[in-house]
Amino acid sequence: MFTRIDHVGIACRDLDATAEFYRTAFGFEVAHEEVNEEQGVREAMLRVNGTDDGGASYLQLLEPTREDSPVAKFLAKNGEGVHHVAFGTSDVAGAAGAIGGRGVRVLDAEPRHGTMDSLITFLHPKDCGGVLTELVQARGATGGDGGER
Amino acid sequence: MFTRIDHVGIACRDLDATAEFYRTAFGFEVAHEEVNEEQGVREAMLRVNGTDDGGASYLQLLEPTREDSPVAKFLAKNGEGVHHVAFGTSDVAGAAGAIGGRGVRVLDAEPRHGTMDSLITFLHPKDCGGVLTELVQARGATGGDGGER
Repeated sequence: MFTRIDHVGIACRDLDATAEFYRTAFGFEVAHEEVNEEQGVREAMLRVNGTDDGGASYLQLLEPTREDSPVAKFLAKNGEGVHHVAFGTSDVAGAAGAIGGRGVRVLDAEPRHGTMDSLITFLHPKDCGGVLTELVQARGATGGDGGER
Repeated sequence: MFTRIDHVGIACRDLDATAEFYRTAFGFEVAHEEVNEEQGVREAMLRVNGTDDGGASYLQLLEPTREDSPVAKFLAKNGEGVHHVAFGTSDVAGAAGAIGGRGVRVLDAEPRHGTMDSLITFLHPKDCGGVLTELVQARGATGGDGGER
């Protein structure tokens, strides 16, 4: 069902400074950057490695663009750090349906737009051992193709 | 320097129940289990995918075996959830030295024994944007070999 760790989402207050830290200390480069107005977040994707489903694993840096956004609320409560873990799948709607059928609350009735033209949904952290869990279908990924982005 | 997301470490109160959740809800199987007496923790490694450095990415479930262990203290403060993020390298001592030279505090003077006969060290979360960061050299990994385990 899940074929890779797609990304680890990290909440930060200053996206540019955090990206610069990861570049200079760890050698990770920003592969993609965008603003998601719906989520109130500016995002940078740092590619770490390719995966054997044809996709890749990233770090996703998240900076809130407004105070009422979920990431701003997370920062106010927890400070900077890991915000969520995302797994890649070739069929996010099917995976969400199967997982929902096992009693895990799926937070989006329909998959929605994620970074890099992906389709995503989130699972309730209280049903996933305290981990806010995201499912990601990469752009163009179907039938087991991990979709390098 | 880092060639993969080696694992995401997840603190839990009941390792068996959490592993069973990941098996039934997500399809991840336990590839390895061990007790690390020094760290006061019981660990299970759930393999998610292979990586293009020849290694693999895992979830690492962590259950404390005593109340004074770091993971027990984490659980008391934060509850269950993501505990750390680990990156794979072929040379943990070299990577730690380079990163330490850039002002990031390395928490172990010498790399120590990690799960599955790996060599590991940790970086101070306050120097890494709130993320407790682990460096992992897989058993037998040298010169760029990611070391599938």
